[in-house]
Amino acid sequence: MVVKVALVSFAHVHAPGHVEQLLKRSDVEVLGAFDDNEERGRHYANRYGLRLFKTIDELIKAKPDIAVIDSETSKHKYYIELLAESSIHLFCEKPIGVNLKDALEISNIVKRHGVLFTTGFNSRLNPENTKAREILSSGALGKVSMIRVRVAHPGAIDKWFKDWSEWFTVSQYSGGGGFLDLGIHGADLLRFLLNDEAVEVTGIVSNFTGNYNIDDQGAAVVKFSKGTLGILDAGWTQVLEGLPWSPLEIYGEEGSLIRVELGLMYYTRKQSGWFKPRLQGAVKTTLDELIDAVSKGSQLSVVIDDAVKAQEIIEAAYRSSAEGRVIKLPLT
Amino acid sequence: MVVKVALVSFAHVHAPGHVEQLLKRSDVEVLGAFDDNEERGRHYANRYGLRLFKTIDELIKAKPDIAVIDSETSKHKYYIELLAESSIHLFCEKPIGVNLKDALEISNIVKRHGVLFTTGFNSRLNPENTKAREILSSGALGKVSMIRVRVAHPGAIDKWFKDWSEWFTVSQYSGGGGFLDLGIHGADLLRFLLNDEAVEVTGIVSNFTGNYNIDDQGAAVVKFSKGTLGILDAGWTQVLEGLPWSPLEIYGEEGSLIRVELGLMYYTRKQSGWFKPRLQGAVKTTLDELIDAVSKGSQLSVVIDDAVKAQEIIEAAYRSSAEGRVIKLPLT
Repeated sequence: MVVKVALVSFAHVHAPGHVEQLLKRSDVEVLGAFDDNEERGRHYANRYGLRLFKTIDELIKAKPDIAVIDSETSKHKYYIELLAESSIHLFCEKPIGVNLKDALEISNIVKRHGVLFTTGFNSRLNPENTKAREILSSGALGKVSMIRVRVAHPGAIDKWFKDWSEWFTVSQYSGGGGFLDLGIHGADLLRFLLNDEAVEVTGIVSNFTGNYNIDDQGAAVVKFSKGTLGILDAGWTQVLEGLPWSPLEIYGEEGSLIRVELGLMYYTRKQSGWFKPRLQGAVKTTLDELIDAVSKGSQLSVVIDDAVKAQEIIEAAYRSSAEGRVIKLPLT
Repeated sequence: MVVKVALVSFAHVHAPGHVEQLLKRSDVEVLGAFDDNEERGRHYANRYGLRLFKTIDELIKAKPDIAVIDSETSKHKYYIELLAESSIHLFCEKPIGVNLKDALEISNIVKRHGVLFTTGFNSRLNPENTKAREILSSGALGKVSMIRVRVAHPGAIDKWFKDWSEWFTVSQYSGGGGFLDLGIHGADLLRFLLNDEAVEVTGIVSNFTGNYNIDDQGAAVVKFSKGTLGILDAGWTQVLEGLPWSPLEIYGEEGSLIRVELGLMYYTRKQSGWFKPRLQGAVKTTLDELIDAVSKGSQLSVVIDDAVKAQEIIEAAYRSSAEGRVIKLPLT
């Protein structure tokens, strides 16, 4: 089966990557794209030889199986509602909402219409993280006391956001700055790796560089229901040349796992040594998974509830920082 | 000049190390030891061939230049007051107090009597940390956005505390568990490396293993006056075989510094590469520094105010966890 895909907006920096990825797949037909910024739409349609829809209705009438939404975060809900009503399956960039309320409304829309939905939590599919979860599930590390995830790049220091990506730094469109943008990956990874839910969050979010009128970094402590303490640090303020953007440390009663400059390694007392596990090769993205789910009925790794739960952790960290208190979860 | 040293109590796990260190120095005469636990005192006096004083007054009458206090934390103030009144210079194990109030009273006593005073913040003198501070001071990393210090061992998991060290897990004697015991090193390192003071602290401290009736781990976010976010995680809950107990990550506008399994490395944009600096060889301890200060008038790296300031950061993290709110510093 050839899956028909349409693109909604090129606002997100990942949009070109999505187009390139779709064009490479022989089982995908790219029907075209709509962008409410006409100049931006024309630019990318020309670059990739795509049909440019004049309105979102025209896109819907072309009957795509899947729409890929790469708009400003604040416009996700509007597009999702229109597309889900027409039974179009959805990939929507992360974070799905500008805040938790927005994400919950999106979740309700998606569930009401019963369409398949996923978001760009690709870190879950990274072979090192998949392997880390497998090692955790095997019990090799025992009960986990502490886990630390950092997701950062130097975007604010180096002023990456300008022209068509400047909206990332305007809270009305993005909902939050560096801590939301990258921290939401970390929040998802904490849930994914621990297979547990957060019960308490406290943190400090701040504007360090002053290069944009929005937060550019934050750090939070997240307590999980089984007692694990998670440390999440994220932002656009770390100079990381040559280092992975998203390293990992996990400590348990029976061992430890670290993913640092030597790659993934773990220690387990049961075998009394450090191991460097063999990793799976090819990396799928969540968008690939959605295409496969539509054509072959396969499972999605990331579903709408994952998007909502990660947003809840991040929202709790922002609230903690703003209100100066520890926030208990769930928030709703 | 031969410096005369006496020992007060063998309650702390570092006491044997202190005796061995003193006995090695040709410029030190060990006068003897007092311990309010007679059996414990006799055990160590016999092991090291030391005179055992029957009372603390007998120790004072022997006129040591320096007393090394390795008692339970709750007894520090009592001994410090007696010894400082007799103009004896002091080494006191960390944390100096069971809480900030205790530490401040100790500080007042020490300052009133004008004796030299230091504590066991030996991490400062570690060649990797000394070098890290030098690199930071040189500006190679620019303004620091984020710093992370972890200080942990598996003491609670492996039930290290029993018999003469069980008091570490009794809050009346120790003031706090794993987070105080190891976190205070981290708090001192944050201040030392950044050369800045904390202004806000939030964190979660918990009893993870349940093996003792006291906290065994904690994580805190510490904001410094120049905007740096510090992440401090510490406790007795990390299985770390083969890993350094106290690694380090520092991110700045111009570079980064990490101290992980490959040792200390830093990146600076000014020279566009990763560097593995040459480290100084021999490591002094703060006790060595005190002996040298008494005999040669040299400077101390760690003074009473450092002990108080680190205790303030840790106390703020405990308060944040207990009261569920972000704590502003200074507390006094």
